[in-house]
Amino acid sequence: MSPAPGARTAAAPPEDFRAVGRRVSNWGRWGDEDERGTLNLITSECLVAAGKLVRSGKLFALGIPFDEDGPQDGRVRANPTRLMKETGAEPQGHPGAFRYADDHVFMALQAASQWDALAHVHYDGLLYNGFPASSLTSRGASRCSVSNLSPGIVGRGVLLDVARARGVDWLDLGAVVEPEELDEVAGAQGVEVRSGDVVLVRTGWRRKFLSDHDKRGFKAGEPGLGIRCADWLRAHDVAAVGSDNFAVEVLPGEYAEEYLPLHMVAIRDLGMPLAEILDLEALAEDCAGDRVYEFLFAGAPLPFTGGVGSPVNPLVLK
Amino acid sequence: MSPAPGARTAAAPPEDFRAVGRRVSNWGRWGDEDERGTLNLITSECLVAAGKLVRSGKLFALGIPFDEDGPQDGRVRANPTRLMKETGAEPQGHPGAFRYADDHVFMALQAASQWDALAHVHYDGLLYNGFPASSLTSRGASRCSVSNLSPGIVGRGVLLDVARARGVDWLDLGAVVEPEELDEVAGAQGVEVRSGDVVLVRTGWRRKFLSDHDKRGFKAGEPGLGIRCADWLRAHDVAAVGSDNFAVEVLPGEYAEEYLPLHMVAIRDLGMPLAEILDLEALAEDCAGDRVYEFLFAGAPLPFTGGVGSPVNPLVLK
Amino acid sequence: MSPAPGARTAAAPPEDFRAVGRRVSNWGRWGDEDERGTLNLITSECLVAAGKLVRSGKLFALGIPFDEDGPQDGRVRANPTRLMKETGAEPQGHPGAFRYADDHVFMALQAASQWDALAHVHYDGLLYNGFPASSLTSRGASRCSVSNLSPGIVGRGVLLDVARARGVDWLDLGAVVEPEELDEVAGAQGVEVRSGDVVLVRTGWRRKFLSDHDKRGFKAGEPGLGIRCADWLRAHDVAAVGSDNFAVEVLPGEYAEEYLPLHMVAIRDLGMPLAEILDLEALAEDCAGDRVYEFLFAGAPLPFTGGVGSPVNPLVLK
Amino acid sequence: MSPAPGARTAAAPPEDFRAVGRRVSNWGRWGDEDERGTLNLITSECLVAAGKLVRSGKLFALGIPFDEDGPQDGRVRANPTRLMKETGAEPQGHPGAFRYADDHVFMALQAASQWDALAHVHYDGLLYNGFPASSLTSRGASRCSVSNLSPGIVGRGVLLDVARARGVDWLDLGAVVEPEELDEVAGAQGVEVRSGDVVLVRTGWRRKFLSDHDKRGFKAGEPGLGIRCADWLRAHDVAAVGSDNFAVEVLPGEYAEEYLPLHMVAIRDLGMPLAEILDLEALAEDCAGDRVYEFLFAGAPLPFTGGVGSPVNPLVLK
Repeated sequence: MSPAPGARTAAAPPEDFRAVGRRVSNWGRWGDEDERGTLNLITSECLVAAGKLVRSGKLFALGIPFDEDGPQDGRVRANPTRLMKETGAEPQGHPGAFRYADDHVFMALQAASQWDALAHVHYDGLLYNGFPASSLTSRGASRCSVSNLSPGIVGRGVLLDVARARGVDWLDLGAVVEPEELDEVAGAQGVEVRSGDVVLVRTGWRRKFLSDHDKRGFKAGEPGLGIRCADWLRAHDVAAVGSDNFAVEVLPGEYAEEYLPLHMVAIRDLGMPLAEILDLEALAEDCAGDRVYEFLFAGAPLPFTGGVGSPVNPLVLK
Repeated sequence: MSPAPGARTAAAPPEDFRAVGRRVSNWGRWGDEDERGTLNLITSECLVAAGKLVRSGKLFALGIPFDEDGPQDGRVRANPTRLMKETGAEPQGHPGAFRYADDHVFMALQAASQWDALAHVHYDGLLYNGFPASSLTSRGASRCSVSNLSPGIVGRGVLLDVARARGVDWLDLGAVVEPEELDEVAGAQGVEVRSGDVVLVRTGWRRKFLSDHDKRGFKAGEPGLGIRCADWLRAHDVAAVGSDNFAVEVLPGEYAEEYLPLHMVAIRDLGMPLAEILDLEALAEDCAGDRVYEFLFAGAPLPFTGGVGSPVNPLVLK
Repeated sequence: MSPAPGARTAAAPPEDFRAVGRRVSNWGRWGDEDERGTLNLITSECLVAAGKLVRSGKLFALGIPFDEDGPQDGRVRANPTRLMKETGAEPQGHPGAFRYADDHVFMALQAASQWDALAHVHYDGLLYNGFPASSLTSRGASRCSVSNLSPGIVGRGVLLDVARARGVDWLDLGAVVEPEELDEVAGAQGVEVRSGDVVLVRTGWRRKFLSDHDKRGFKAGEPGLGIRCADWLRAHDVAAVGSDNFAVEVLPGEYAEEYLPLHMVAIRDLGMPLAEILDLEALAEDCAGDRVYEFLFAGAPLPFTGGVGSPVNPLVLK
Repeated sequence: MSPAPGARTAAAPPEDFRAVGRRVSNWGRWGDEDERGTLNLITSECLVAAGKLVRSGKLFALGIPFDEDGPQDGRVRANPTRLMKETGAEPQGHPGAFRYADDHVFMALQAASQWDALAHVHYDGLLYNGFPASSLTSRGASRCSVSNLSPGIVGRGVLLDVARARGVDWLDLGAVVEPEELDEVAGAQGVEVRSGDVVLVRTGWRRKFLSDHDKRGFKAGEPGLGIRCADWLRAHDVAAVGSDNFAVEVLPGEYAEEYLPLHMVAIRDLGMPLAEILDLEALAEDCAGDRVYEFLFAGAPLPFTGGVGSPVNPLVLK
């Protein structure tokens, strides 16, 4: 009898994450100067094929509302602060009837729906493709910054609705999604994951927040991918992975002594951008209805020079 | 003998902008509560058709670099300030090897490549669709905020390369683009503007900035659309219009006593979002090469609750 | 037998706060255009007298550390975010040996130790001295802004150490300090409150935070002045009042249906600036030691044009 | 015949700045762990004596207005951006009559009137007192941060009005103030510079800005102290020096190959905080009137943990 999906088996301690990283590494695959990582997998053919997935003209936006009611609890990051500079209620010095409103924002680039750039995470002194961690200074990232992810990130998207497959509103905090479950969900959904895909994994963690509005609860931990998914991402040559939780991977993690191991392996060894804090609810509902789990995904990071992340509002067209 | 394109004829003072606004108004067209304006023109059919325009798998990003070398001169707005919070050089309190970098930004939402929301401009006390200007407070826009433009803005895009059609690197400051010229350019390019399109007008103003890096010059005025283009935008039922200048329309404008009249009519009467400070250079070069001026355009505003604008990095797929 | 200090007697519901405000009002006292309120009470004689209080050359700073470990819990305001722009580790484009570091801050002006400007609070549509609340716009305060408090705030300071007088580390949340207790404390300390004084009331609320670092607890409510202290402040012609809590006055307050009534009366009717989130610990310890509770107080707000508050690090010289 | 004051004599190339730094160095003078530098010179006796200088009860504030019309031109730093969050025009969720306004600021800590902390400038890999430059990270300054300047900066202040002594509204850009001139000005004013003083040097550069509002001109260079003043500052054991220009010292400087040499020597070798962009106009006018050039100076930096500078609004009492 096999264990329940996501159950942790004490008999199988996780493999050393560095060994995983070495095995799945994409360093050098696209040249020594490459700073785009798995985005290189999105070929022209991928884009043409993705365009053909717009069949019914349905449109979804995956960005959460950007405001102070967001899921950040202020311990690591705060929600965005947007402030008005002009409303037009006052004389503005222009001739005639013209009145305008204007606003500013202060925010962590990873405060809401976001991309992690390849410079976001490193270990052992090296970034993706072997660039030195010293390339990160108070000026920003001179290597692997978010600017390198532009133009992009667009291509075929696939939703893997793990929560729905398990028949739950959301997975529990700490629940591990193993690669076998990703395959099972894809199979049950009738969708295939292909090279160059943007894979979206739904854990229900956004749904939980929408139901309880508990910021501390949202950030206390999460269900998500386990470290064994690194091989799965490499085997399928996924271009990018996103989720409705805040770190894609499970937290607390599988290693007592390592924090965010899949971040380390995915971003630094695979060279794969991660999308976090997405709202997959409406898309998931639609996919469950029409049984179509593939689509055109278009989620461009803002090209902040030297940036290590970017807010994003990805669009999905079916 | 007709005047040179863009020459201003003193014999024809512009029509009162309010009369233009009344004639082209879309108020009530999509109901009294509508806050999406011309985005309503992007039907499911439009999206399906736009998907089919991805033929060769070429990808372009229209966002300029988001950094302090941008074109803002600080008089109305400054360029974005992005600052690191973490680089990972210091102990970060996590167990094991994990190191991360993190950054923040302070910026005007309209500091770089951007969308103007429908709440951005008003006159005579009313916003688009008759919502009161008093709906704009220090809290933001309770009506017609940028959130209403999500999901969007995506659809068929068309480039009208006016600078290239005129055979110049860029139009002069103050040069007016008249609707007849838009038709001529479209005709010469072999492209038709259709209902629901996102129309991109290239004046070369970005190219000028890239050649001289003169912030004051970039913001001193610009070539752009004249007020008579309002009828053209309405007649073609354009969904949104963008440009490589900073205000889409010509500046100094055609009215001595009114500032940004096309902003007033387009945003407030037509209910049309404007995209500004786009980089159309690579796209224009490609279109000139393959003679294909239509494409899938995907440029999602960030859904800032109450916001009156949003940074954006639009993607174009051909 | 009299009730314990601070005990609320249900038999005595508080007087209508508007009646208190009318009675203590300083409107018109210094002219119809006055925007400095009780700072007018600090005469040249007061300053000369204050200078003479520097007897032993002891110096104290009352500002708390300005950082993310401050007492703000993020619900109304967040602690300051200070970010480096330059560290000097990188080439900086100057000739020779020069290296510099530079930093930025984003903060609510009332996030840490602070002054409330007279434009900070209003009711019934009017600010201090009858200026209309409409003078507050998205541009800031055109009347009674913090700039009007400069030059100032400096003069004779007096510490009333209520917590020490009660023999407790800190007063309980919700404990009311009544005017009689202020007089008793002053008497026991051997100090007299005079016209033009800056009065500092120590409740121990800072000490509590320093002992438990509980942000939510710090902001959940506080011990502080009751509404009846308004008459006391007026009778003594106090120039400004400060405290180690976050609102000077008791919270939850004495009125079921009114929030921060002493703010309304002190700021709007008396025209009195309030200083909040001060660290009085070292000063109080010293005063208990030498039994000298009067000193020179110098706490200048930053002259933010149109601002409604300011961070401050008040200095005390004894 | 001696050269005009401030004239540069090509015959006398400046001494190597490192040699100056070694000669005037205060490293180790107050122990190996000292992070307060010349503030140690302000003894209790200094404070008592300073209190006695409050004779007529006149009060001046030296901070310029903190707003977008300040002297920053945006090339290195921008003027502060203050934005309203609340005005009270909207329902705010409190019971009863209470309405409040609240605002935020984003600013470089050295954007307006300011203190340079001892961590602001370094060379040859070392900060004041030999602390390593590596103590500056993206987290801030772990050594010699602005917090160390609190409690302070307060003491006897002396104004040296060089512009008035020369009989000009302002000194020219690039005019060098030599130590002999400081002595001459002090002598003519009848004031003596003593150990522990805060010395304020008026060049008129603020007056120039107030007359022409030319931001680019203000930052294009300035008159100011020459490198030889380093010995003068050390010989008089000055505690801190401030000016109405933006860098205290002359710019362009006296060394072709070194930038801001007096910054390097004063901050890093002497351990002396610098105050910049002060408004000395009203104070200078008063001092010229009563011939009293000494006073109590109180200018507390905000204690930003890890900060390398701080805005300040210094108060002067005479």
